[in-house]
Amino acid sequence: MTLNEAIEKLNELEKAAYALGHAQSILYTDGDTVAPKNSWKGRGMALAYLGELTYKQLVNPETGEVLETILQHKEEVPEKTFRQAEEMKESYDDLHVLPMEEFIAWQELTNESSAVWHDAKVRSDWKMFEPYLEKVLAARRRFASLKAPEKPAYDVLVDEYEKGATMEMLDPFFRTLREELAPVIKEVAAREKPVPAFLKNTWPIAQQRVFSEKIMALEGIDPLNCTLGETEHPFTNNTNKWDVRITTHYHEEDPLSSMFSVIHEGGHALYELNTADDLQFTCLAGGSTMGIHESQSRFYENILARSRAFCTPLLKVMREVFPDRMKGVTEEDLYSAINLSKPSLIRTEADELTYPLHVMIRYEIERAMLSGDLAVKDIPGEWNRLYKEVLDVDVPDDRRGCLQDSHWSFGGIGYFPSYALGSAYGVQMLRQMEKTVDVWGSVARGDLSPATAWLTEKIHQYGRLKKPQEILLNAMGGPLDATVYTDYLKKKYSELYSL
Amino acid sequence: MTLNEAIEKLNELEKAAYALGHAQSILYTDGDTVAPKNSWKGRGMALAYLGELTYKQLVNPETGEVLETILQHKEEVPEKTFRQAEEMKESYDDLHVLPMEEFIAWQELTNESSAVWHDAKVRSDWKMFEPYLEKVLAARRRFASLKAPEKPAYDVLVDEYEKGATMEMLDPFFRTLREELAPVIKEVAAREKPVPAFLKNTWPIAQQRVFSEKIMALEGIDPLNCTLGETEHPFTNNTNKWDVRITTHYHEEDPLSSMFSVIHEGGHALYELNTADDLQFTCLAGGSTMGIHESQSRFYENILARSRAFCTPLLKVMREVFPDRMKGVTEEDLYSAINLSKPSLIRTEADELTYPLHVMIRYEIERAMLSGDLAVKDIPGEWNRLYKEVLDVDVPDDRRGCLQDSHWSFGGIGYFPSYALGSAYGVQMLRQMEKTVDVWGSVARGDLSPATAWLTEKIHQYGRLKKPQEILLNAMGGPLDATVYTDYLKKKYSELYSL
Repeated sequence: MTLNEAIEKLNELEKAAYALGHAQSILYTDGDTVAPKNSWKGRGMALAYLGELTYKQLVNPETGEVLETILQHKEEVPEKTFRQAEEMKESYDDLHVLPMEEFIAWQELTNESSAVWHDAKVRSDWKMFEPYLEKVLAARRRFASLKAPEKPAYDVLVDEYEKGATMEMLDPFFRTLREELAPVIKEVAAREKPVPAFLKNTWPIAQQRVFSEKIMALEGIDPLNCTLGETEHPFTNNTNKWDVRITTHYHEEDPLSSMFSVIHEGGHALYELNTADDLQFTCLAGGSTMGIHESQSRFYENILARSRAFCTPLLKVMREVFPDRMKGVTEEDLYSAINLSKPSLIRTEADELTYPLHVMIRYEIERAMLSGDLAVKDIPGEWNRLYKEVLDVDVPDDRRGCLQDSHWSFGGIGYFPSYALGSAYGVQMLRQMEKTVDVWGSVARGDLSPATAWLTEKIHQYGRLKKPQEILLNAMGGPLDATVYTDYLKKKYSELYSL
Repeated sequence: MTLNEAIEKLNELEKAAYALGHAQSILYTDGDTVAPKNSWKGRGMALAYLGELTYKQLVNPETGEVLETILQHKEEVPEKTFRQAEEMKESYDDLHVLPMEEFIAWQELTNESSAVWHDAKVRSDWKMFEPYLEKVLAARRRFASLKAPEKPAYDVLVDEYEKGATMEMLDPFFRTLREELAPVIKEVAAREKPVPAFLKNTWPIAQQRVFSEKIMALEGIDPLNCTLGETEHPFTNNTNKWDVRITTHYHEEDPLSSMFSVIHEGGHALYELNTADDLQFTCLAGGSTMGIHESQSRFYENILARSRAFCTPLLKVMREVFPDRMKGVTEEDLYSAINLSKPSLIRTEADELTYPLHVMIRYEIERAMLSGDLAVKDIPGEWNRLYKEVLDVDVPDDRRGCLQDSHWSFGGIGYFPSYALGSAYGVQMLRQMEKTVDVWGSVARGDLSPATAWLTEKIHQYGRLKKPQEILLNAMGGPLDATVYTDYLKKKYSELYSL
């Protein structure tokens, strides 16, 4: 095979992968937003077939030859082409080890397991979910052993979401988070503040929808390229930079829950929306690692939107949409309200300070699950024990305990660390950004574009064109350092709670 | 190839066709409802690829052999299998004559042409659309000549939407409509009634959304299997009976426009929702001809929902949702209001009496376009001349004239007659239904289920299992007779306008 033939074939593979991925992405998004409840059966059939096609396109001797041909000619091909081949080779290697029957069985298992988890969560019935998690775990172990038999299984899984991450690096990272944050969390809990009166209200969903539009505009999201849907567990999906979907969930008694969902998913969206045009429709679009993706969503959600500066434009918008309810509320009131901290049960609703320890607990459990130190049947007990030990909260039922997150049900064991890593990356990025950008001045004026321009330049534009470590080093100005993150949290909450 | 091998292969073809069709249907629905405006490019790429796969699955020597093998063993296979092979053979024959490059070029052309039509309509700029319609027309002519060179091109196209329909049958049909209805339309126009005061109001869209839910419930649509979206030009899409999507468009100044859209699309939906379970995921689901499909949508929209009996439950629902606006409005007021008749410009907003002549005008123009008697550039003039001659209205611009409908832009030349045929079929079905069902008593009680049960038994359940002519004869109790339809309209409007 000549190099030119290989490049031509690579472009065909990209075209097919884009089309199949596009269809799958829209089917998932539609299924979780506007599709009728009973539509799962037909969607499952369609997704299974599209998945099989995706597998067949990628896993065949010709693809291997195409990719090898390009990878052997690094000096002769453009950086983009080389990186496409490298990225596709990784997917190829991942899938290649898995016989097609196992791939199809895996898809069927996670489809079913997700549906069972949904019901098990509603009923708070761990026993119902347990046999599925057993199977998911066995399949993930098997996958890890096929892919890299010489490595600990959990390292193989984590690496899928956060390239290069290992337990050797995550153990001290989470240890630092716990040691540095646990005392602060305790002190803050001792000075618990009440929920302010203005929040104890109903916030009609029709008005919250208007509020969402204004929040998206404030965040700098172009509605021509990104729309907002409604779902149970908010997520972001995208097919290309001109077609991004974010989602939220409205609660009538709380406008902040949906608002922070919109801003968080909006952060994921901005990453996609600002990736370079010429990476679109290739495997180099769609962002780098999950940790880097979460660094962006959590940058907008926490670092920017829970800042003192953001309360200036936020209060303006809230007064426009909810004039009666916001009467007499000051920026300081709002800043305090959006940063109330209290050890609690639900990760996705946790405040910025306690959040990383929710993740740490999941890391401990996943690690023990994979090593075999923790049996699946013992997860609820261990979960509740850790919540008591680490956050001093009593878990009343599994719905609000070990059944709260969807990740394990779809096979995402090893994903959780990305959330904490992303948060830490974000603060190190902030420290670099502050050197050249008037972050807080512009945010206070309701202008997030200087921050977004910096993130675009350092991160968003590249998609996967640069490798994750290169992107991170460039954006953080140095390697990961958990204490930059914990210092940021300690300072912020010491001021908020006058410690 | 043995018969068993052929049947097995048929099932595989059905599975692939279902999956690809499912994805395409959801991509279209999503694109016309919640997708961001700029998403067309990626969607176009995905649809082109899925279309190519669909073509390749169907058009190859093996498929031909599979279908022939089954068709040669009519006595040995179940009716369902035989009909699957027959229906698939029709699609095969249709596509087979078209080389793949032409098929792809056709998809690209209609994609582009649809987009151009949208803009041309907004700008009321016929010249902008003209070159695209020229190309669409040439492609449709070419297709007709490849498929059946011995037949008039328009007959070939009409047959695609309404099996067996020809100009020989449509000419006298439309002649009867015009001769019988034109005088009544004239008399009614002379007794024009004013729009009643209660309709001159604003109807907040948030409340109209609630109204839609109640109207769907009244129509008997299960939200677990069918959801409502919002779009510019309402349509129905479905993948199977557990996944149907209807759409509507809200106008703040008029709640009836959206309501009748919901009921019309709901009629299409009920057809799909009531098709037999064992036809799902095969080419025998998805309803029979377009005329039969329109007979169902228009049955619910006009025959049932614009009846005197329906005004009893309708007024109740409107009073629940819009108590202030409906104060003092009687059932008689409502019946008169939903049946105001006046020659007008827009087909989709036309009343039940004038509607068929809107269709007749389109039939005349399409017929002349295909025969070559009418050049594309002369369509606006001919359109306006016919609207003046037939309905005595002056067309002020092409936006409200020959650019109003999307059909030609996507290649649907020959579709329009289905609307008038469907309306006529519906009245003949009603006359049969009335023999055994207390249609008006049950409708007045807000119960449409007896009518739906009759339609399900005679039509819906079969999907394409029976041939269209068999379904029609069985449901209408005899062949098409335009005077049954015109008599119904003449009687209804003579009473309404005391002629």
